[in-house]
Parts: sequence; C-alpha cells; structure tokens
Amino acid sequence: MIILGVDPGSVRTGYGLIESDGRRHRLVEHGVLAPPRRALLPERLQFVHGGIIGVIARLHPEVLAVEGLFHAVNTRSAIVLAHVRGVILQAGAASRLPVLEFAPATVKLQVAGFGQAEKTQVASMVCRLLSLPSDTAAGDATDALAVALCHAQLNLTGAAVLSRVRR
Amino acid sequence: MIILGVDPGSVRTGYGLIESDGRRHRLVEHGVLAPPRRALLPERLQFVHGGIIGVIARLHPEVLAVEGLFHAVNTRSAIVLAHVRGVILQAGAASRLPVLEFAPATVKLQVAGFGQAEKTQVASMVCRLLSLPSDTAAGDATDALAVALCHAQLNLTGAAVLSRVRR
Repeated sequence: MIILGVDPGSVRTGYGLIESDGRRHRLVEHGVLAPPRRALLPERLQFVHGGIIGVIARLHPEVLAVEGLFHAVNTRSAIVLAHVRGVILQAGAASRLPVLEFAPATVKLQVAGFGQAEKTQVASMVCRLLSLPSDTAAGDATDALAVALCHAQLNLTGAAVLSRVRR
Repeated sequence: MIILGVDPGSVRTGYGLIESDGRRHRLVEHGVLAPPRRALLPERLQFVHGGIIGVIARLHPEVLAVEGLFHAVNTRSAIVLAHVRGVILQAGAASRLPVLEFAPATVKLQVAGFGQAEKTQVASMVCRLLSLPSDTAAGDATDALAVALCHAQLNLTGAAVLSRVRR
C-alpha cells in the first residue's frame, strides 16, 4: 500500500510517500511545497493544493494521512494552518482517498517510541525505518514521512480512524 | 461587474452573486451550500469547494469577496471555519479571480450603515438594495449578498485590497 503523509505548514508543507506492508517500509518520494513567500494567501493555498493533487495523480497513493492541528503555538498560527489543512483534506476527498488524521504525539509515539520526542529523534527514526542516509536533514519532509509511517505501523483500516477528521 | 460574495460557515456556507456598476445592483443568484450533516470534514470541504467552483464556472463572476474571520466565538469554531475558508479562497485562486476579504464590521457598515448592525437589519438592507421581497429570510445567503454589496459599494479595485488576504 502506498501512503501519502502530509505535514501542513503555514509557510512550508512537507509531503512523503512510502510503500508499506505494515512491517517493511520503502521510501517512494518526499518533498516540500513552499509557495513564494510574497504570494497572497489564496495563491499560496492554490500552490499547496496543486502540489498535493499533482503528487496524488502521479504516484497513486491509496490513503492520505495528515498531521493533526494540535501543536499551533498561537491562535493566529492555527488559523492560517487550518486554511492550509482545508485544501489538503479537500484534495484527498476530491481524489476519493480515505483521509486520516494523527495527532503529533501519536506520530512521535509510533515512530520514535515516545510522544514527546524531539524533531531530530523523529527524523533519525524515519531515516532508520526507510534506510535513508542518516544525515538526512530533519524537516518538513521527514515530519511528513513520519505521519505516513505512523499510519503504516498502526496498520489501521481507513474506516477505523476516519472519524478523527470529523469536527 | 458580477461579484460573488461568500459567507463561509462550518455548517452552512452562503453565497450570493450580484451584478453591479457600483451604484445600481441586481441580484443574479443566491443560495446555501449545506453538506450532509453526517459527512466527515474532508467530504464537507469537497462539497463546499465543488459548489463554489460550480457557481464560478456557471455564472462567471469577476471577483470573489469573502467575509473575514473575525467573528468566531471560540478557537475551535474558528479552526473549522478556517478549513472552509481555505477551500473557498483556493477555489477563487484556481479560477484566477481576485479574492478580497472584508471584516464583518466593514460589511455591516457599508450595507446597513453601522458596524454593529443586527443580522436582520443587514438582511433588510440587502433586500432593499436588490429589490428582493422584504420577507426574504435573513440567513447565510443574505449575509453573502451583503459581502458582495459591500465590495460593490466600496467600488474597490482588486489590487487595492488584495493585501488584506495576506496573513
């Protein structure tokens, strides 16, 4: 199964695709969608939306796993982030993918072994699980791969956790 | 000029199109996008997105005016609303429309004469300005028409207020 993990950000949105049978995982692709800094919000949303739609069309994931919105430092950040999440969730629904949401602590627990793991610890485990070079920079793309790995390791059916995206 | 006004909501999203030369206004269409209540968030976003894209394709507005996010009662409501706004702003950008944002108080001031106007007062003025039956129910659609009228009456060029959507 090919899993698309996404770590939405108000400035940069990481994405990562893995192929997994639940125990063995293989990297398919990872990257970062970074709209031009000076672009207005509607254009930035269009940039991210087009990027996600393009990745889905090109690599045919069977599920979209998105990091939940539980870590925003302040309300204003959370609001902007929620706009970005909106277009990502919609891109998944438009592509008829099951869309799952995982809280950051769940991702850290599944991938690094404890819910308060540092970003670099998560990245280190992502590299180990996917046989990436250990000097791969911890960033938006490794966070996105962690979300995909979280889904793979929890081995969840779409139906089991879809309700988490209800609000 | 045909103006599409949208009043995003976490449950119901109103839209209204008017044709205006800045002084005289004519109703083109108004309606409400109400996704099935039991639908999950990604599906609800897809419903609203498809509705807005459809209206734009069918009625060819030249500008999209959206009510700003300044009135959410609590953070959780604001977060859900921001997801909905995200797909609306993206739909505008994808359709290459200028996307403008107006604070609720600005809409009320422009349409009803003062920024603290009640919803029914705004609806009453919307009906008068567009020659609608005076018993038209105040609701999401009249709110959306008020946003469109606000833009028409301010007679703004797209460039002048586009920066308001930057965050």
